[in-house]
Amino acid sequence: MSDRSHFTYRPARDELAYTFGGRIPVAHVRSGDVFTVHTEDCFGGRVRGPADLPSQVCAMPYLNPVSGPFFIEDAEPGDTLAVHIAAIEPARDWGVSATFPYFGALTSTPHTTTLQPPLDERVWVYDIDPSAGIVRYRATTSDHSVDLPLDPMIGTIGVAPAAMEARATIVPDQHGGNLDTPELRAGTTLYLGVNVHGALLALGDGHARQGHGEACGVAVEIATVTTLAVDVIKGDLPTTWPRLETDTALMSVGCARPLEDAYRIAHQDLTTWTADLCRLDTLDAYQLISQAGRAPIGNVCDPNYTILAAIDKARLPRPQPAYQGVHARLRHLTQERP
Amino acid sequence: MSDRSHFTYRPARDELAYTFGGRIPVAHVRSGDVFTVHTEDCFGGRVRGPADLPSQVCAMPYLNPVSGPFFIEDAEPGDTLAVHIAAIEPARDWGVSATFPYFGALTSTPHTTTLQPPLDERVWVYDIDPSAGIVRYRATTSDHSVDLPLDPMIGTIGVAPAAMEARATIVPDQHGGNLDTPELRAGTTLYLGVNVHGALLALGDGHARQGHGEACGVAVEIATVTTLAVDVIKGDLPTTWPRLETDTALMSVGCARPLEDAYRIAHQDLTTWTADLCRLDTLDAYQLISQAGRAPIGNVCDPNYTILAAIDKARLPRPQPAYQGVHARLRHLTQERP
Amino acid sequence: MSDRSHFTYRPARDELAYTFGGRIPVAHVRSGDVFTVHTEDCFGGRVRGPADLPSQVCAMPYLNPVSGPFFIEDAEPGDTLAVHIAAIEPARDWGVSATFPYFGALTSTPHTTTLQPPLDERVWVYDIDPSAGIVRYRATTSDHSVDLPLDPMIGTIGVAPAAMEARATIVPDQHGGNLDTPELRAGTTLYLGVNVHGALLALGDGHARQGHGEACGVAVEIATVTTLAVDVIKGDLPTTWPRLETDTALMSVGCARPLEDAYRIAHQDLTTWTADLCRLDTLDAYQLISQAGRAPIGNVCDPNYTILAAIDKARLPRPQPAYQGVHARLRHLTQERP
Amino acid sequence: MSDRSHFTYRPARDELAYTFGGRIPVAHVRSGDVFTVHTEDCFGGRVRGPADLPSQVCAMPYLNPVSGPFFIEDAEPGDTLAVHIAAIEPARDWGVSATFPYFGALTSTPHTTTLQPPLDERVWVYDIDPSAGIVRYRATTSDHSVDLPLDPMIGTIGVAPAAMEARATIVPDQHGGNLDTPELRAGTTLYLGVNVHGALLALGDGHARQGHGEACGVAVEIATVTTLAVDVIKGDLPTTWPRLETDTALMSVGCARPLEDAYRIAHQDLTTWTADLCRLDTLDAYQLISQAGRAPIGNVCDPNYTILAAIDKARLPRPQPAYQGVHARLRHLTQERP
Repeated sequence: MSDRSHFTYRPARDELAYTFGGRIPVAHVRSGDVFTVHTEDCFGGRVRGPADLPSQVCAMPYLNPVSGPFFIEDAEPGDTLAVHIAAIEPARDWGVSATFPYFGALTSTPHTTTLQPPLDERVWVYDIDPSAGIVRYRATTSDHSVDLPLDPMIGTIGVAPAAMEARATIVPDQHGGNLDTPELRAGTTLYLGVNVHGALLALGDGHARQGHGEACGVAVEIATVTTLAVDVIKGDLPTTWPRLETDTALMSVGCARPLEDAYRIAHQDLTTWTADLCRLDTLDAYQLISQAGRAPIGNVCDPNYTILAAIDKARLPRPQPAYQGVHARLRHLTQERP
Repeated sequence: MSDRSHFTYRPARDELAYTFGGRIPVAHVRSGDVFTVHTEDCFGGRVRGPADLPSQVCAMPYLNPVSGPFFIEDAEPGDTLAVHIAAIEPARDWGVSATFPYFGALTSTPHTTTLQPPLDERVWVYDIDPSAGIVRYRATTSDHSVDLPLDPMIGTIGVAPAAMEARATIVPDQHGGNLDTPELRAGTTLYLGVNVHGALLALGDGHARQGHGEACGVAVEIATVTTLAVDVIKGDLPTTWPRLETDTALMSVGCARPLEDAYRIAHQDLTTWTADLCRLDTLDAYQLISQAGRAPIGNVCDPNYTILAAIDKARLPRPQPAYQGVHARLRHLTQERP
Repeated sequence: MSDRSHFTYRPARDELAYTFGGRIPVAHVRSGDVFTVHTEDCFGGRVRGPADLPSQVCAMPYLNPVSGPFFIEDAEPGDTLAVHIAAIEPARDWGVSATFPYFGALTSTPHTTTLQPPLDERVWVYDIDPSAGIVRYRATTSDHSVDLPLDPMIGTIGVAPAAMEARATIVPDQHGGNLDTPELRAGTTLYLGVNVHGALLALGDGHARQGHGEACGVAVEIATVTTLAVDVIKGDLPTTWPRLETDTALMSVGCARPLEDAYRIAHQDLTTWTADLCRLDTLDAYQLISQAGRAPIGNVCDPNYTILAAIDKARLPRPQPAYQGVHARLRHLTQERP
Repeated sequence: MSDRSHFTYRPARDELAYTFGGRIPVAHVRSGDVFTVHTEDCFGGRVRGPADLPSQVCAMPYLNPVSGPFFIEDAEPGDTLAVHIAAIEPARDWGVSATFPYFGALTSTPHTTTLQPPLDERVWVYDIDPSAGIVRYRATTSDHSVDLPLDPMIGTIGVAPAAMEARATIVPDQHGGNLDTPELRAGTTLYLGVNVHGALLALGDGHARQGHGEACGVAVEIATVTTLAVDVIKGDLPTTWPRLETDTALMSVGCARPLEDAYRIAHQDLTTWTADLCRLDTLDAYQLISQAGRAPIGNVCDPNYTILAAIDKARLPRPQPAYQGVHARLRHLTQERP
């Protein structure tokens, strides 16, 4: 162990990445490393006020930049990468949201396409006060303003995809990516199946907060300073879809269209995961999750929609620690570091 | 006001209804009446143990019985019926769940049909202890058991549909019906558009609790003794989809397939409802709900899926009381009654 | 046999029906009867020119009227009703189409709802020349006109639904209804499962022609004079979804959302039907249909979408005549009648 | 012009590609070149009989190989690549189909996932007789066999995707890819938007024939010898989704889930394309396509589903030749070559 074990990565603008896969790593990380990453917001920091309409100041496909990828030493295809999120700090004292033409749940889109014109494009700027733990909403056409709880999350985090693919960072799928779930907050460990030598982890798209489904397509977007710890779980059983663990819960993430397929994926994965982990019969696990499970919606606007299936550990029998107890280990590791 | 203002209705077995619409009323109710209704469970009480396989002891279409319909005096098409749920008491000290062939989110179904055989049919019996506020899950093939919080809800409640339709009670749609959301608990007021003279309210399908989406298709099913109060809001603006109000939140309900359409309906309705109620610009309301809204999933197993859009009243500007303050009025009315 | 065996039914305006189910019959029909029915167009004949905007001249829910229902003697639940379409004659020398606000495949709708305004409402009038076999399209804002083949079909035909339901005539489902497929032309026999005593057959919504999917939501709508023959196939195996037979093909109809479920239903039904009929292994039938099947789209605009699965009889092994050869029998019967 | 203008490319096994994008070109092609490409079948030729179960003899992700990519000189982002298919010859006298575990329309899949076991895996071998123009189906468990028309098509053809993505060849999307439509037969010109310098065209996955939707997920898979001609249409208007042209029709291709979105995309693109090409009002084009359009289903099994929208040129007013008449030019060019 050395001082390299806690390094900080801050990308220059031209180092930002717009895909998972197809990029060479910007740094190497070892299991047990705690490191800090600066991330830009989904607009690359270009939308700073009402006059900065995203469709004008941003150039496709240079949206939703991520920092990385990081080469994870010892990570090989078939392994699972555990990424513990230790801290997410807003990098600025403001965040921004917008309506973007033909993007969001309450507009036709390039896929659910119609002959109708788009909704108006508009920008909302939010004040962020980390010490008070609030995000301030202000209406654009009346004087309503209201404080909402600050609940920072990482919207986009993933590894290089399988099958030699490279995917735009806007896409959530089996490799992670634009999962857009508030559950990816500090204290959570994310599990991702490793598809390529070195895994190639990258992250970005912080949100000061978001509602369920990110209805208008854009959360309270922020740049962040995010601290992570990683570990590689060798071989074992494969991690097919992203999974999350907190001190109190296990969760599986489904990404698909239509939205019910995201629900099915998340629940099938959580059912078989917990059945295996806790030596429960599959139908008994299905039944327990049916009555005690939660299903928070991530996004209903991205190329794939996201739903999680979650179960409190307290509902499960004598659970074996998931992934050999790596969550507790990484949580402890990050808490003892300065 | 007289003693008729709190009456109790307990249906004989052959009085149970299996549709909304197409039935004559069993009783008349007036605005301001508080009344108590006995409801059977979704299996008509026929599934009482592991040997009572639902597909054998129940006969289609005699599933999901409701009590009613009740004729609401003064309710006319275009009005809104407010139904406040004052109390839901489990009628027995047990509840029951099951896997049912080709029903549920993790099996092919008659609509998402495949050539695969069905999952095993199996019954789970739960102990219910209202004084302790718990529902006890027991695995069928291992010794795991766990206490879950009792959270009684009405799964199915609605009025006669529009367009001269009669719909099976298994269906959730604009008239209410099998909404299957835990938000329909005591303390909630449900708003339904009135489609026919007298509205024709009916309810049943109590759940001791359910997870988000009712994954296996069957909650912890119970018979209940449910106490309600109703009021009719005349004319005003139409209620197109079911809406809910609690002391702290406003919610809209969307019922549709695919699941994203349920999300869209709920969020479009909540956006336009709150914009109108609070004199917010539509896009400002859309933005606020995008960041501060919740979207609890009701069911992902019924003929239409259900998602709610919810916003805390505290996030809204100087809200006008919804529907002329009927929620507070009915809540007060039911609390002062013995 | 008597002269009643070929009767004609022409409804008065106030006899038109707007649901399947929930209506008393207008006439009795026996197996082997050939009879003629006058049907109105989907707008009740009220849209006759560009100034007759449907949303103004029609009153919800009085859209898509059907003629009937007809009580079919000897038809009991579990039986199959065979309806042979002998002839469909346009009743007028014009037809009409329109864009209708929030209805159609290329607009947001009340279910796929957005915050966007509707498309313009507009009417197109078509000249129909039955002797030449043409329907003339004329653009509204330029001088383009073109002759299209006249291909008359019945858009809406069905029986009373199961489960004591009544469904608006706009809905296609297991009972038939608004199937909106060009395959329902003269020469086709339709099979429907009987759900109630007397079946209660009704029909309407003729189209001079339509494209696949009825993209804008409205075909070339016409009133018709339609000649039918019916027969009841007792007990046997149940008909779960509508089926069609022509001289050369067998077809199954799926009605559902999302559209892939309509595809699944139609193909699962055709696979198991032909496997059973021709004593083919299920996977062999699945394989044959996968390579030789057709899947014409009916509608992508109604409350349920419609897709058919079709296989030419010539591809099947020594097929047993479907439903005891009723198609050939009814076809012969109607051809020999004057 | 020289003899290089008709070259033949035959990939060695280790030259086969499994993605669009992320690969360097195998050869350069100029506008006006006519060239011949050998393509392997979707199983890489490894499934040759009933004992060769695909899940055993093939290794993920080495499925659905394509030949190429070919660098198209002068093709730059924003241009449109026209690919005329002059001939598709089966390379062997047999083809093969199969059921593959959890793949196809009538089984649960990794996305529409359930807890059910997969269908049986089985192989069907077809005899192909090009001179007779037939493909012979043989049942596996009975003696039924039947001749089907040989109708060779290219299942997978595309260019490198936009946004720096690389996509598995199994995926159909805006860049083309696994479109799986019988319309990609000899005589058709395919238009694809160019996303990268040189376009990077590749193709494979020939089918001797397939039914609408490729229900079981696998067509009659063949290796082919395919002859193409290409041209680059500079700048002009962008080609967002794949388009097809034959001597008699224009078609747009939509790829998406759910299936109705594929329908929407194809019809929105064909509506706006023909409106622009023929100076028709948008709603007039929408109306015409609604009555005269066809909508053949491509696949209902791949990661995105495919539907085409097609209109006969004869229905359109004085059409300007699409893409400057390139279809006729390439057709003529390939017919005059030896």
